[in-house]
Amino acid sequence: MSTEAINRQWILTGPPHDRLTLDNFGYRESSIPDLPLRDGQVRIRNVAFRCAPTMRNWMEEGGNGGYPSMPVGEPVIGPTAGLVLESANSDFRVGDRLQVLSSWQDYAVLTAAELGSATKIPIGTTYLDALGRYGLNPLTAYFGLLRVGEPKPGETLVVSAAAGSTGSIVAQIGKIKGMRVIGIAGGVAKCDWLHRECRVDATIDYKTESVARRLEILAPGGIDIYYDNVGGEILQAAVNNMAHFGRIVLCGQISTYDTGKQPEGPRNMMRLIYRSIRMQGFLCSQFQHLFAEAIEDLRGWTQNGKLVHREHTHTGFELLPIAFLSLLDGTNEGTVLVETDKGAIDEYRA
Amino acid sequence: MSTEAINRQWILTGPPHDRLTLDNFGYRESSIPDLPLRDGQVRIRNVAFRCAPTMRNWMEEGGNGGYPSMPVGEPVIGPTAGLVLESANSDFRVGDRLQVLSSWQDYAVLTAAELGSATKIPIGTTYLDALGRYGLNPLTAYFGLLRVGEPKPGETLVVSAAAGSTGSIVAQIGKIKGMRVIGIAGGVAKCDWLHRECRVDATIDYKTESVARRLEILAPGGIDIYYDNVGGEILQAAVNNMAHFGRIVLCGQISTYDTGKQPEGPRNMMRLIYRSIRMQGFLCSQFQHLFAEAIEDLRGWTQNGKLVHREHTHTGFELLPIAFLSLLDGTNEGTVLVETDKGAIDEYRA
Repeated sequence: MSTEAINRQWILTGPPHDRLTLDNFGYRESSIPDLPLRDGQVRIRNVAFRCAPTMRNWMEEGGNGGYPSMPVGEPVIGPTAGLVLESANSDFRVGDRLQVLSSWQDYAVLTAAELGSATKIPIGTTYLDALGRYGLNPLTAYFGLLRVGEPKPGETLVVSAAAGSTGSIVAQIGKIKGMRVIGIAGGVAKCDWLHRECRVDATIDYKTESVARRLEILAPGGIDIYYDNVGGEILQAAVNNMAHFGRIVLCGQISTYDTGKQPEGPRNMMRLIYRSIRMQGFLCSQFQHLFAEAIEDLRGWTQNGKLVHREHTHTGFELLPIAFLSLLDGTNEGTVLVETDKGAIDEYRA
Repeated sequence: MSTEAINRQWILTGPPHDRLTLDNFGYRESSIPDLPLRDGQVRIRNVAFRCAPTMRNWMEEGGNGGYPSMPVGEPVIGPTAGLVLESANSDFRVGDRLQVLSSWQDYAVLTAAELGSATKIPIGTTYLDALGRYGLNPLTAYFGLLRVGEPKPGETLVVSAAAGSTGSIVAQIGKIKGMRVIGIAGGVAKCDWLHRECRVDATIDYKTESVARRLEILAPGGIDIYYDNVGGEILQAAVNNMAHFGRIVLCGQISTYDTGKQPEGPRNMMRLIYRSIRMQGFLCSQFQHLFAEAIEDLRGWTQNGKLVHREHTHTGFELLPIAFLSLLDGTNEGTVLVETDKGAIDEYRA
């Protein structure tokens, strides 16, 4: 089979200086290295990829946000699901299916350190579900809301990028936990979907409405939890409308990723003091020891019809850059996944 | 006695438009109202006043920080210690000595709501100690560091305005709890005092040194707790040097109070996310139910010689505005107190 003979790669040609474009990605094909694995290494066949907005940050030069920097001239780093073909690591066996931070190529050799982020995909869960429905976006939503936000029934939750892959799960878990949920999204279609499928109490269309004004009206008693996926002006509007003892969950800042400049932070620190507000950043990985339990909850809610998950799967390795760009311009709907080839997933079934 | 016959007052003549000056304060004398108290009210003689930097915020027009706004033409609102002269409130008796949010006048009538902030000064504690050594500044330091910051032995603590009335207590409690403490203060004298009296591990003189550069050198493993009294550029430098799972305790933003403009907030929210950093505002009053226990700790550390408290007491009601302005220009050293008259404190002994 043609894809066996060669290793297809999408490499980062250089850091984006302003907006990310297709020119930042370069396609190349190489042969599969025939070197024996070193101790602790594992060779995997990447079968499916998830496009994660934060990868845009990793592409920045330097990276003063504290995030890792992607090396230029190497395959783009991102979450994948794949099959272990060869192992020199006693924790992983040939035939294991992994969800792991790998890179945009058919075949990858992962070191023991890189395998620290790996989780085995349980029997009965597909590669795509491991990246999508039960992947890091819903887990991020789950831990961010429940562990960082600490919701109480009857409280008011505001979520930005609420129609997105993380935000929509946050909104729905908020409803499951008895909160009043206000979703902020761009455009009528997304707001309609939030009302219809996610059963939120109210929406704000940031493309046509003043978020600050609408928050004042919709949350007159203040916002108890603001789950922030976007940063920038919407974060500022939320800060100005937080309730006493409110919690701001800092999950992402997508409005600031693809602008080529260092964004301003929220003004009004005195409001945080006078209202005893907590603003907290987190990474899903800090809750890795609790993933299995969280996936059980997500699975249960999904089976009960309380949780819907929206994803868009592109088929074809060559579509990776285009799929990724759809995340940054807001045209995607839900989680963006790419399976390498038509039928690849069946071929690499455990 | 002359001070019995009249009620001296310092009123706010108008909100400061830029820097606060003596023109914002007006002196007036009135007679003591002879009206009977309404239900729940108490009449007190204010004996001593504490000048608190945050009062500068209350003087702003509107106050979008969420803090209360001081009415123009009325006595300046601030923390005082005084004696109950007359009571129509079953919780307070004539002769009780109170620490309370009152106002800059000899005699004040407090409503039941206003008395919500009152605590009785225990026998054996002076009016001045109730405002100073065991007052809201040390209590703020205590709860901010221990309850909001949640320090662990061996962690690195950075404190701004470290020679101030709150910061110096934070620094010393940090040492008591086994932390490595770096104090930021303005000028050689304050830094020397911090080394000598507060036994901090290192100081940064923000007037002559680059705080950002020095933090990189002094905290190469990152800052675990940054206790922020100043905001602005120093907060930004701390954000950029926080360790994973670091905590930023937002206590005050004094560098931004007297500038007449809305300050910028800290940039770099992505750093908060990638390092799982918590930034939390608080008010001391939320821990009011724990004050007695905290004062016991403060008293014990003071008696063991582990905790020094620095204060400057001005004598004379007429000095209130001058004493207050010394807080904002950084010329004060420690807590700024004003006793109304020479001997007043003895006269109003319980």
